[in-house]
Amino acid sequence: MASTGCESLKVLAFDVFGTVVDWHGGIAREVAALELAVDPDAFALAWRAGYQPAMRRVMSGELGWTLIDDLHRLILDDVLDQFHITHLTEAQKRHLNKAWHRLDAWPDAVEGLRRLKSKYIICTLSNGNIGLLTDMAKRAGLPWDCILSAEVFRKYKPDPAVYLGAAKVFDVAPDEVMLVAAHHDDLAAARACGLKTAYVERPAELGLAAIKDVSPDLRNTLHARDFLALSDRLGC
Amino acid sequence: MASTGCESLKVLAFDVFGTVVDWHGGIAREVAALELAVDPDAFALAWRAGYQPAMRRVMSGELGWTLIDDLHRLILDDVLDQFHITHLTEAQKRHLNKAWHRLDAWPDAVEGLRRLKSKYIICTLSNGNIGLLTDMAKRAGLPWDCILSAEVFRKYKPDPAVYLGAAKVFDVAPDEVMLVAAHHDDLAAARACGLKTAYVERPAELGLAAIKDVSPDLRNTLHARDFLALSDRLGC
Repeated sequence: MASTGCESLKVLAFDVFGTVVDWHGGIAREVAALELAVDPDAFALAWRAGYQPAMRRVMSGELGWTLIDDLHRLILDDVLDQFHITHLTEAQKRHLNKAWHRLDAWPDAVEGLRRLKSKYIICTLSNGNIGLLTDMAKRAGLPWDCILSAEVFRKYKPDPAVYLGAAKVFDVAPDEVMLVAAHHDDLAAARACGLKTAYVERPAELGLAAIKDVSPDLRNTLHARDFLALSDRLGC
Repeated sequence: MASTGCESLKVLAFDVFGTVVDWHGGIAREVAALELAVDPDAFALAWRAGYQPAMRRVMSGELGWTLIDDLHRLILDDVLDQFHITHLTEAQKRHLNKAWHRLDAWPDAVEGLRRLKSKYIICTLSNGNIGLLTDMAKRAGLPWDCILSAEVFRKYKPDPAVYLGAAKVFDVAPDEVMLVAAHHDDLAAARACGLKTAYVERPAELGLAAIKDVSPDLRNTLHARDFLALSDRLGC
């Protein structure tokens, strides 16, 4: 433990999409089940590709504060157009949009979180809205102590208000919080706010057809293969 | 079940202080441990008596948005004066102020919540801040699906924004949410917003020296002796 510099750590805050749950596999599975005559893998990637641009529209002020459920729906309507799918009913679109509430956890996630929870406060720190994250946790058995979301701070990551807001909620210093994520840009923004950071490898985040580079960035406090390895490193 | 009218119910939102946890017993216990030469029962009642007036100062605009941890500290400083206690260090006062994070659950609460969680989303809907409610849940083993707080809505109960905000977070109609509380005024405000309501008897909320009237109000959807009886009524 001496080598990690994590003796003062109190809170582990987790990015969720891609880090805790497999969004690509979950979306592709639900799209395949609808038998839409499209490539489920391409559809999932197209939907997710709209995510950062949609949040940027909120952060720039072009759109007022809008929850991820509603951004997902805006993007879905575009992607359905793009794939020439015109026959879904409103009820089917609403159901498909909530596929993001029904994503499966990576195989190590539940056991890893249980171990980490024995020593730290574990919370989400996601741009996903509270209702989405709650439905997801209940279905997937994710044992969060607390669901924190951009919705609480009305700012999207990488706005510093989200990272610093998490420390403030728990009345701790920024360096007593560690962001755990599978994305170096999220971790870099957290680091700039004084948080500790742990990168977790999720090579299949974009599907098995496009294995992701999971090389370490030495500026992170820790680098771990998965949540079990992270638990080992943190002595849980 | 047919008689409860609760077939469409999806979310149980719980008041916390007095309903889920025994604030009087917890505060009196911590005050007694400090050996302050005061009546711990009277001290606990005095501290809690400042709670509603302090929130009203926020709701009237006299104070800006202020978390319950900070309101508790303002009240504590007054109560210490009132009881002529002048020798506590700043660290002791900070520790005592967090006694509200260390309250014990009523004996039926954890088992009742576990049963209710099998069928419903269970969340806090408390004026307590998120950090306080998270610390409390972790210590007492309260298995919330989600910690909702006035802090999310930046309004204190009984402002309608809190009750309606809970329905909005979970994307359900107000009558698909039931507020569970040991206080008729909280329940009346929720009912005015269209929520279902369940009153739970907590006769010892103010201590054993002042047993509380726990008579039913027939305008509530349900009246239950404790969370186990509530689980029975809801078929959990």
